[in-house]
Amino acid sequence: VTADLALQFEKHRDRHLREWAELVSFPSISAQPERAADCRRCAEWLVARLKRMGFEARLLETPTKPVVFGERRRPGVAKSVLLYGHYDVQPPDPIDQWTTPPFSPVIRDGRMYGRGAEDNKGQLLSALAAIEALIERGALDRTVKVVIDGEEESGSAGLFQGLPSWGSQLRADVLVINDTGVAPDGSPAITMGLRGIVSAGVRLGGLLRDLHSGAHGGLAPNPALALARMIATLHGPDGRVAVEGFYDGVTEPSEQERALSQALPFDEAGYEALTGVAPTGGEAGRSPAERAWFRPTLELNAFHAGHAGPGTVTIIPAAAEARMTARLVPGQDSEACLAAILKHLKDRVPSGLELTVLRASNGGTGFRLDPGSKLVARARAVLDGLTEKTSVLRWEGGSIPVVTALVKASGAEPLLSGFADETDNAHAPNESYSIEQFRLGFLYTGALLAEL
Amino acid sequence: VTADLALQFEKHRDRHLREWAELVSFPSISAQPERAADCRRCAEWLVARLKRMGFEARLLETPTKPVVFGERRRPGVAKSVLLYGHYDVQPPDPIDQWTTPPFSPVIRDGRMYGRGAEDNKGQLLSALAAIEALIERGALDRTVKVVIDGEEESGSAGLFQGLPSWGSQLRADVLVINDTGVAPDGSPAITMGLRGIVSAGVRLGGLLRDLHSGAHGGLAPNPALALARMIATLHGPDGRVAVEGFYDGVTEPSEQERALSQALPFDEAGYEALTGVAPTGGEAGRSPAERAWFRPTLELNAFHAGHAGPGTVTIIPAAAEARMTARLVPGQDSEACLAAILKHLKDRVPSGLELTVLRASNGGTGFRLDPGSKLVARARAVLDGLTEKTSVLRWEGGSIPVVTALVKASGAEPLLSGFADETDNAHAPNESYSIEQFRLGFLYTGALLAEL
Repeated sequence: VTADLALQFEKHRDRHLREWAELVSFPSISAQPERAADCRRCAEWLVARLKRMGFEARLLETPTKPVVFGERRRPGVAKSVLLYGHYDVQPPDPIDQWTTPPFSPVIRDGRMYGRGAEDNKGQLLSALAAIEALIERGALDRTVKVVIDGEEESGSAGLFQGLPSWGSQLRADVLVINDTGVAPDGSPAITMGLRGIVSAGVRLGGLLRDLHSGAHGGLAPNPALALARMIATLHGPDGRVAVEGFYDGVTEPSEQERALSQALPFDEAGYEALTGVAPTGGEAGRSPAERAWFRPTLELNAFHAGHAGPGTVTIIPAAAEARMTARLVPGQDSEACLAAILKHLKDRVPSGLELTVLRASNGGTGFRLDPGSKLVARARAVLDGLTEKTSVLRWEGGSIPVVTALVKASGAEPLLSGFADETDNAHAPNESYSIEQFRLGFLYTGALLAEL
Repeated sequence: VTADLALQFEKHRDRHLREWAELVSFPSISAQPERAADCRRCAEWLVARLKRMGFEARLLETPTKPVVFGERRRPGVAKSVLLYGHYDVQPPDPIDQWTTPPFSPVIRDGRMYGRGAEDNKGQLLSALAAIEALIERGALDRTVKVVIDGEEESGSAGLFQGLPSWGSQLRADVLVINDTGVAPDGSPAITMGLRGIVSAGVRLGGLLRDLHSGAHGGLAPNPALALARMIATLHGPDGRVAVEGFYDGVTEPSEQERALSQALPFDEAGYEALTGVAPTGGEAGRSPAERAWFRPTLELNAFHAGHAGPGTVTIIPAAAEARMTARLVPGQDSEACLAAILKHLKDRVPSGLELTVLRASNGGTGFRLDPGSKLVARARAVLDGLTEKTSVLRWEGGSIPVVTALVKASGAEPLLSGFADETDNAHAPNESYSIEQFRLGFLYTGALLAEL
């Protein structure tokens, strides 16, 4: 079946690339309110795309961004598949580091460049194209449902809110999510777990305005200095998060998870070549695999205070802002973790200054799946047939917050895979995804749905 | 003489306001390289202004910004006065907080609004107008020299470099500097000392790019978090600077300085009304006057890392930048202090990350003058005649880095006064200076030069 799919891919190759560029060209940045209309246009494009494939498709409205829903029912067939993806993207900042504009996709050296080229528009569209190919061949006898989130990059609020009422129409046996990647050595992989995420944005202020640092240095408290000091207390010298209660309930990896993860080589030199740094982050005394997949973290994503342009502006800045995210693991109470982080900061506000919580969002604690599942074994068989490399089971440190809720609403067993790798620069400038990665995603989804 | 000057002010009032607005309209921001041409145009405007008053005037070129020099020699008169001011201004950031554009000066409610309206263009022009008035009255029998710096807000590099070669033409008996302010209760004041300043800008990096905080959280070191932790070590819990050697050589205030400073009331409620915060900054166990005037400080002026726009970008930022300034007092070695601050940071760079010094500038340690000086007594007599309030001797926490070098080059005794107050918002958005403050500066300089 893979050989037939490969021929079908080549037949429609130009159209796939054209549609891919079209999809990437929407600046569907869920975090930016001024992009709401672009998000909706992108969602409508997907509804039209699904209808062309023979799906019934529509927008499910939410108080925030619309969710794209499509289904192709096969009456009398008991089994059904639910595909989850997202049409929103991360903001393209820092914009000046892009070689070509983020929403003017171009193909260079066999790679599509643009924000969302991989995450998740490339991976999503390759799956939709595979379903279309199966339909064209008359080889799709299952009911297929598609849910495309408009807010995966900013907490999936709309989808979370809608799930309880949409639940029955989302019922399925298998939940296919193509939003993860291959192993560092390029082996195709099933992702057996993701971390969850909570995020917080705070402002420390209290000054009416920026103050002259000569006239006020020694008198006024300095919000930038104070926030740096507060942030510095979030971790201990051993890299452990020092927020009280943060590690409560953390589930340690099982023996099987530990064995599987330790069997995967971690290439320190490769990591340094890719990122510029040795993997010295996280908790002392734990392996890289543990630190990246099985342990929670708390990262500072942004810190801003004072003048940013050329020249020193000699002020005590009126306020300082910090944004942070914690990646959580099963067993933690995500709401309690978020509250504990905020309490930790509030308890350390120096006299005279004021902490404002600008944003607090709870994306849950993540999940880990059963390595012994039959579905996983079948998906591995498909992956093993795609390239010369043998597939592996691995985990990822990132988050797709709504997965746990989707599993609950659909009753489906989740199966996470995909062909992303570090060179894609997801969430960073110059995001890209190769045509070969797109093709592999197409073949994987097509063969999987044909075999199930 | 004050009454005559007051009449002369009224006679030319409209012209003074027009010229003041013209001078403020030059965006002469010395810290911004792209403003070099605006700085030169501003300097040339001042040369023309001095020539119109009957001065010989020209630009003294330097490798950075030109210095305006003017003189009106009175042959056979032994005594001469040197006036120092500056034509450069601070950057106007944050620009979105200005009610009207910073370089489109407007008068509202009797105040001129615009960057530099006070610091130093308003104070400088009021002094030039006073000298012009004395010349008009035939009441100026001293040689007067004027030096107008183009880089006071960014270290006075050009003036520092030129002083050794220009020295002889700057010889004078009295150095008049009108760049300071009144006491918080509005009493006219002579400023008996300023702190010095050293500044540093650093970047902590090492990552090739922003990294996904899910994939890399627990693996990559976080430059933003690390720089916050490094910054947090700059001070102890008692507010003292924790940099080794920082306090070496600090001159404690004399008994007379201590008595004079403690006789000035510090209005805590007034301070809080003005700034939004109680004066809780600086070292524990020292009075506000000591902390603001006689003790060195180290302030964080800016800190930037990661995404600044709407939405959380879930990254480990590739780099973080911090800018800081220390205000120094006589007895400290400013070069050694700057080196100690940088060494303190370098010693604390975590494994894998790299610290780059973006900027390090040394403006000296400041100075304190003799409260028993006869010149000071004569200036106080002038001030006492201007308003119903009695003048006071005070100090300021800010810096005019080149004063010490100017004193050395000119051989003159410095006299610092001025009519700035906190509501002027110098260095902050919506800087302004009232016409009444301008008029008082005019009367003070005129009467002082007539009496000397």
